Amino acid sequence: MLNIGVIGYGYWGPNMVRNFAEASGSHVEMVSDLNRQRLELVHSRYPGIRVTMDHRELLHDPKVDAVVIATPVSTHFPLAMEALKAGKHVLVEKPMTAVSEEAYKLIEEAEQRNLTLMVDHTFVYMGAVRKIKQLMDAGELGEIYYYDSTRVNLGLFQYDVNVLFDLAVHDLAIMEFLLDGLKPEAVSAAGKSHVVGRPEDIAYLTLFFNSPFIAHISVNWLSPVKVRQTLIGGSKKMIVFNDLEPNEKVKVYDAGITVNDSQDKIYQTMVEYRMGDIWVPQFDRTEALKVEAALFIKCVKEGLTPDTDGEAGLRVVSILEAANKSLAEQGKMIYL
Amino acid sequence: MLNIGVIGYGYWGPNMVRNFAEASGSHVEMVSDLNRQRLELVHSRYPGIRVTMDHRELLHDPKVDAVVIATPVSTHFPLAMEALKAGKHVLVEKPMTAVSEEAYKLIEEAEQRNLTLMVDHTFVYMGAVRKIKQLMDAGELGEIYYYDSTRVNLGLFQYDVNVLFDLAVHDLAIMEFLLDGLKPEAVSAAGKSHVVGRPEDIAYLTLFFNSPFIAHISVNWLSPVKVRQTLIGGSKKMIVFNDLEPNEKVKVYDAGITVNDSQDKIYQTMVEYRMGDIWVPQFDRTEALKVEAALFIKCVKEGLTPDTDGEAGLRVVSILEAANKSLAEQGKMIYL
Amino acid sequence: MLNIGVIGYGYWGPNMVRNFAEASGSHVEMVSDLNRQRLELVHSRYPGIRVTMDHRELLHDPKVDAVVIATPVSTHFPLAMEALKAGKHVLVEKPMTAVSEEAYKLIEEAEQRNLTLMVDHTFVYMGAVRKIKQLMDAGELGEIYYYDSTRVNLGLFQYDVNVLFDLAVHDLAIMEFLLDGLKPEAVSAAGKSHVVGRPEDIAYLTLFFNSPFIAHISVNWLSPVKVRQTLIGGSKKMIVFNDLEPNEKVKVYDAGITVNDSQDKIYQTMVEYRMGDIWVPQFDRTEALKVEAALFIKCVKEGLTPDTDGEAGLRVVSILEAANKSLAEQGKMIYL
Amino acid sequence: MLNIGVIGYGYWGPNMVRNFAEASGSHVEMVSDLNRQRLELVHSRYPGIRVTMDHRELLHDPKVDAVVIATPVSTHFPLAMEALKAGKHVLVEKPMTAVSEEAYKLIEEAEQRNLTLMVDHTFVYMGAVRKIKQLMDAGELGEIYYYDSTRVNLGLFQYDVNVLFDLAVHDLAIMEFLLDGLKPEAVSAAGKSHVVGRPEDIAYLTLFFNSPFIAHISVNWLSPVKVRQTLIGGSKKMIVFNDLEPNEKVKVYDAGITVNDSQDKIYQTMVEYRMGDIWVPQFDRTEALKVEAALFIKCVKEGLTPDTDGEAGLRVVSILEAANKSLAEQGKMIYL
Repeated sequence: MLNIGVIGYGYWGPNMVRNFAEASGSHVEMVSDLNRQRLELVHSRYPGIRVTMDHRELLHDPKVDAVVIATPVSTHFPLAMEALKAGKHVLVEKPMTAVSEEAYKLIEEAEQRNLTLMVDHTFVYMGAVRKIKQLMDAGELGEIYYYDSTRVNLGLFQYDVNVLFDLAVHDLAIMEFLLDGLKPEAVSAAGKSHVVGRPEDIAYLTLFFNSPFIAHISVNWLSPVKVRQTLIGGSKKMIVFNDLEPNEKVKVYDAGITVNDSQDKIYQTMVEYRMGDIWVPQFDRTEALKVEAALFIKCVKEGLTPDTDGEAGLRVVSILEAANKSLAEQGKMIYL
Repeated sequence: MLNIGVIGYGYWGPNMVRNFAEASGSHVEMVSDLNRQRLELVHSRYPGIRVTMDHRELLHDPKVDAVVIATPVSTHFPLAMEALKAGKHVLVEKPMTAVSEEAYKLIEEAEQRNLTLMVDHTFVYMGAVRKIKQLMDAGELGEIYYYDSTRVNLGLFQYDVNVLFDLAVHDLAIMEFLLDGLKPEAVSAAGKSHVVGRPEDIAYLTLFFNSPFIAHISVNWLSPVKVRQTLIGGSKKMIVFNDLEPNEKVKVYDAGITVNDSQDKIYQTMVEYRMGDIWVPQFDRTEALKVEAALFIKCVKEGLTPDTDGEAGLRVVSILEAANKSLAEQGKMIYL
Repeated sequence: MLNIGVIGYGYWGPNMVRNFAEASGSHVEMVSDLNRQRLELVHSRYPGIRVTMDHRELLHDPKVDAVVIATPVSTHFPLAMEALKAGKHVLVEKPMTAVSEEAYKLIEEAEQRNLTLMVDHTFVYMGAVRKIKQLMDAGELGEIYYYDSTRVNLGLFQYDVNVLFDLAVHDLAIMEFLLDGLKPEAVSAAGKSHVVGRPEDIAYLTLFFNSPFIAHISVNWLSPVKVRQTLIGGSKKMIVFNDLEPNEKVKVYDAGITVNDSQDKIYQTMVEYRMGDIWVPQFDRTEALKVEAALFIKCVKEGLTPDTDGEAGLRVVSILEAANKSLAEQGKMIYL
Repeated sequence: MLNIGVIGYGYWGPNMVRNFAEASGSHVEMVSDLNRQRLELVHSRYPGIRVTMDHRELLHDPKVDAVVIATPVSTHFPLAMEALKAGKHVLVEKPMTAVSEEAYKLIEEAEQRNLTLMVDHTFVYMGAVRKIKQLMDAGELGEIYYYDSTRVNLGLFQYDVNVLFDLAVHDLAIMEFLLDGLKPEAVSAAGKSHVVGRPEDIAYLTLFFNSPFIAHISVNWLSPVKVRQTLIGGSKKMIVFNDLEPNEKVKVYDAGITVNDSQDKIYQTMVEYRMGDIWVPQFDRTEALKVEAALFIKCVKEGLTPDTDGEAGLRVVSILEAANKSLAEQGKMIYL
């Protein structure tokens, strides 16, 4: 039985507590939060879980084996480092840290102490994303041409990070998983803030690779409609991943272009397109966080490396870091 | 009765011929095309219209008062210039020319000869776009924060221009109209080609302004799904323009953000959003090209300046030209 | 503080327990169920609630003031009657009883004992339905022409009742509320069973009134897609209520027909239609069951009559009863 | 070359003229209509086609080989009979006639004279419907459980027939084709008129068979939204045919129910459902009327029997006739 301590019971923490409370193999020992009312909520829901306003109490409790960090981004590094130094395994919310330097240090610390360090790239554990990965690994899509994602809604503004850190991070984590490591040559990001003194609420991020592949992510906290649509185009087939569709999240299109030696060059083109059947595969509908919690428990117990380890977290943070530099210079290309 | 000659009977030419044939106040006198079969098609549909494979015959026919040019972009300039020099009024398909230098010359020539020069920015004559303009002019949206458009589909590749010239041009023309002149400070464009020797089939264009306003256009000939969605966000209201919706093309959202002095800074933010009613206004459903044809006839007859005159065409071409420069340098910011 | 006992912790019971546990003014004292595992689930979630496999223990517990019955339809009558006889106020799931005779008896018993008897017509407490009621009461729709509802999905078959009792009951409850009492002249129902020994899994119910108004309900447990769409047509405006739409559940169409004295009788008609703006009003998004729980508590405490009292429940049951007769005779008209 | 005469140039006639004008193997010789302006429209579009206000001129013109009848339903019989008697082959719009007696007589007359008699059940020639037929014939759906169709919109009222004759006729024609002949045991129809002196504008038609199969058709000229959705449920798979979907008209669901011997009878049921992949097959996108026109020409030339011959037309008319009887008696079951 792995004893878990959860730091932060705000937006995401309750999901962490619920999943580790219900997982076989783990037990939630303690929850800390700076807000007393939130701790009362924990108590009313889970009378058996101890609560504290002092996270150090949790981090240094000998009964706690592993710590889940569900706090604002800027606090990820100090909390995770303190947890590792206290000998605890760590699962930290995305993005792993605010800057790559911090991510490096956490990886080193965890390695030296032989502790599990996992990043909560939740989408990686979603059945839809794993189905897409499976199709891509089987070569169904052919050569991958592009990844184009739109994540917009009228959203709660974060106070410490911009919209890229809040929303684009999901796509970076998904690509990191789908492409077996996300290593662009360069990135360019542009965006704007519309509230004085606040970070960017609209941003566009382009990732350039040493290949015809291109990735683009559009994020926006000021959209009146919610869109969660990702297009993945390949030379053989194409995928639309729409996370808002209840029953058709993943659609596989047997569609693409073919070269055609037409001579009627004035009006037609030699490139034609074909549109075949569409296929909507079913996939495992288990809650992503449940899958993730089970994997974290297993990795800790068996000393395995999770899909979303510190290295994966670092690669995502490095890109966000470069994106922020580009944002500050209005879209200047930043090489990685 | 204005006698019209139409050059080009490929994709768009037939719509031009049909609209000018049915318009009161105009008569289609002659159609030219390089392809004999297309001319036979004209003849079978309109036995009264003369046809020719030599556009010069049309340009120099004394019965022809005005010339409509519906040919590939690279031919717009020489054909339009020849027409103006022959004393004909000109309506030229979008984009007006391949480069801004050519657009300047056409404007000059038309002015010197006192001829009407109009650019076929079709969307500007669509009821939906005119309704949006009316709402914006009335201040319904408040300060405009962003214009974000997605135009993707599995498309016919153009042989002489990239996807920006084919699809993004629509958004530039719409913005040019909505904003009473499109004058960004700088643009940045990124894209890729996936067919050897062909222009970019995917591209992203960002327009920067000397204000919090930002514009972004995502275009793609390799998408398995067709999307034509434009979000226009303002401080008071927001609009979604979805051209594929049969009955709800324009939706007005009484939605936005408000600043909130909450002190619970750890988990919440001081910026909150509000979501009110949605309103789907009806508007004039007349075919845009019919409205445009009527306006062209009226402008020629009364010596008026059309909404989409040479200057509007030039501003759009200037931005495409800058976008192409940026594309060639992988997203480098190009100042206008 | 009203002490609540809940009988049945299957599909709907947990929602009842949660809402009465969280309501101010009530406390869940005890839950009974025939299944031990379900009671263990109650215990793990709410350590403070007593559980029992014997509903009589609950019904006769002096601490229990009111009983919520969330069990299969056939048990509603005996449980509710026993509860009333034990002096408890009663909130019973829809439909109130299996036959109207039973509903009558419950009403009488509650009246004699001066106890609150409320039926869980949940939809009546949904913000969307209350908004529609408000629009209808204000005369926005004009004369009401029809109510046409489709509720289909691949559904869990009930073992004791057919698909009308499971799904059409919602529409009857909604109409009962919207029309201030549902009093059709006659009903006709047709349907089929596709599993041997099981009740009808597809059914169509038509309600005839002494007016041009007509109501029709289509329900189906064998549909591959889920549909929850209700059209309400009036002489002035029309409403589409789509419960699956996250943000546009209620749409008001300024649409209808007008009589036109055209003389061209061969091809045209004298009846024309008009299609104006669409309006998507916002409404209270509070969970319906939360509103309902608060009302039940208030009615008990202040001796008020709830919107969905025994009489409302009875009218709905009477129609279901007539519908079942019609079903047995393949659509024969049954007068009420 | 088959010389065609078309009677009626109202709503549907222009499509007939266009398709027979463009078909290889036919030539449109003459068009008749009672309205002079419509004939002028024919002339402006097709200067080579002769026009007349007297249909007898057309019917007795020796150059005309075959007659297409696109006039109001009540005139189908006299016009088709006169055409057959004049020795012309006949293609008549749906429904074939107003009553079955008339359909019988036309079949007899055509047989005696050895003339082709075809009914314009357009949907039967649509690629989507032919794809569904192919899947059903291959046994993909298993035993067919139900056909459930909704055809509603804010529609032009017909002056001589009710909404069943206008809209439900499409579903009867589709079923007639899919089921290799539509032979219900009985029908029941209910509906209402909301304009004084006009036929029913809302109607519901149920078809009963000597099997678990049931068919239901909901039609409405007073709906603010347009719906064209048909569900076809089978024991193995289910189909949704949505004619308004541009790219996903036919969806095949690998979904259904399975019997499960669970003992937990209180809350669960022994019938469970399964939901597998969804498949969206492509199919021939040729305009249905083009396919139909080609078949009519071929049948006339080679003496073949079309898919939608007089017998098919008769079966559809017989059901409409019975439906009208049922409508008049408020849903009374009418046996066929």
